Amino acid sequence: MTEGHHLIIITGANRGFGESVANTYLESSEASALSYVLVGRNQEGLQKVLDTLKHIGASTNVTVKGLVVANVDLADTHKLDANLTRIQEAAKQLRDESIQSKNIITKSILVNNAGSLGDLSKTAKEFTWQETRTYLDFNIVSFVGLCSTFLQDTLAAFPKDRYPEHKTVVISVSSLLAVQPFSNWGLYAAGKAARDRFLGVIALEEKGNNVKTLNYAPGPLDNEMQADVRATLGDKEQLEIYDGMHKAGSLVKMDDSSRKLVLLLKKDEFESGGHVDFYDI
Amino acid sequence: MTEGHHLIIITGANRGFGESVANTYLESSEASALSYVLVGRNQEGLQKVLDTLKHIGASTNVTVKGLVVANVDLADTHKLDANLTRIQEAAKQLRDESIQSKNIITKSILVNNAGSLGDLSKTAKEFTWQETRTYLDFNIVSFVGLCSTFLQDTLAAFPKDRYPEHKTVVISVSSLLAVQPFSNWGLYAAGKAARDRFLGVIALEEKGNNVKTLNYAPGPLDNEMQADVRATLGDKEQLEIYDGMHKAGSLVKMDDSSRKLVLLLKKDEFESGGHVDFYDI
Repeated sequence: MTEGHHLIIITGANRGFGESVANTYLESSEASALSYVLVGRNQEGLQKVLDTLKHIGASTNVTVKGLVVANVDLADTHKLDANLTRIQEAAKQLRDESIQSKNIITKSILVNNAGSLGDLSKTAKEFTWQETRTYLDFNIVSFVGLCSTFLQDTLAAFPKDRYPEHKTVVISVSSLLAVQPFSNWGLYAAGKAARDRFLGVIALEEKGNNVKTLNYAPGPLDNEMQADVRATLGDKEQLEIYDGMHKAGSLVKMDDSSRKLVLLLKKDEFESGGHVDFYDI
Repeated sequence: MTEGHHLIIITGANRGFGESVANTYLESSEASALSYVLVGRNQEGLQKVLDTLKHIGASTNVTVKGLVVANVDLADTHKLDANLTRIQEAAKQLRDESIQSKNIITKSILVNNAGSLGDLSKTAKEFTWQETRTYLDFNIVSFVGLCSTFLQDTLAAFPKDRYPEHKTVVISVSSLLAVQPFSNWGLYAAGKAARDRFLGVIALEEKGNNVKTLNYAPGPLDNEMQADVRATLGDKEQLEIYDGMHKAGSLVKMDDSSRKLVLLLKKDEFESGGHVDFYDI
């Protein structure tokens, strides 16, 4: 049985795959204490997720603490500094509490789950540079800001010489599109590929600091984002496949996918910086 | 011997690899006529490149025409609309002239050569979101703008039903970093990976329109950008390798690399949307 106190920051945590990761982490990570930073747009939704986690924690003997950082629109660069600071402060508060309670954090995890599809009705030649910029602001610019502030803060709080057992993990919720192009996914594919490679570089740079990174492609999930795909995707061939999966009930259940991710993290045998697909494991 | 009239737009054409591509295209493509749109910052440098091309063309029986589009800073999004329009107008003028002269363009090529390294002294966790945004403006936002306007204009001017023989090619000057991460190349690697994947999507979307795309990694070139790498790269292990190659004279000569690219284009057997490295061919 794994022990320890894990700090886990999840973006887009108020619903969908982010919420699912929050839940299955509690269920399957076997940490004895969890400190959540739940980031998202919807205050009420985030609070509800956190309340549920605390409730389940209480009935399963896992110490669950957490803070929500709401009204965060990661596409809005005008508020990005302020929002990153709010996320950093929430994580700091939970780290400080862990020190005071003598149950210090042993593992720090950032799950970059928030993301957008882009306009899937368009082919690449229809994208304007303006919408490209907006897309990148959300999916890469804020992602880099989250990764860099998280790494700086975590490595400063738990320097290896003093905390040789502390582990850090940065995750990108990736996609098959990161490694294989399909029509109508130009911006999405470019963004996911960029994130994959960025975490590949971090894996090399921070290897000596007990940092690992993982690009996890969760599969075609049975969630709202997939419903958006089916409502907007311009490519008929792919649309038939997704419609067929939807009707057949063969889209991937979010908890099945997030549980695989959590078990990957628990076993800790994944290659740092690599790309792992739901269907590969 | 290949014939035909090729329109070729090259960014960053006033020096370095862009200039080299312009020269070797004339030398090795075996087109009977070439219309160049040379894009860059330095008016004088661009004009000099064009003059040389015209001079060589005159002595080798290749009809060389061309226009320079100078003072273009692709990192400056405030001027991006205006600069894209200037590039589009230059291409249009050359297309119109080709129709008037009854030597109509048979192949249209965009070479996305311009790009920046980012701050190679930094590791990923040191990148701010602000510098990330600036980096992406130059290397992805303007790249998407160039690709999309080029494809729209070219396919509108040469619709397949009327011009079944016309071919279109979009090239990204890529890098080994697009497919393999190394320390200190976080933004560069992310950007090149994004560009690779974007052209992979275009390859699928525009297959039916006689459009091919190619991500060409030119190797470690013996040029100013490589000198910048050696002056700024924070990773000592890589620095030793590059310094060693520099001292041994084993960095790749620009014309050797650009000639391989031109011959790839001429043979036209490359897989559209793929990634080809100098050392692979």
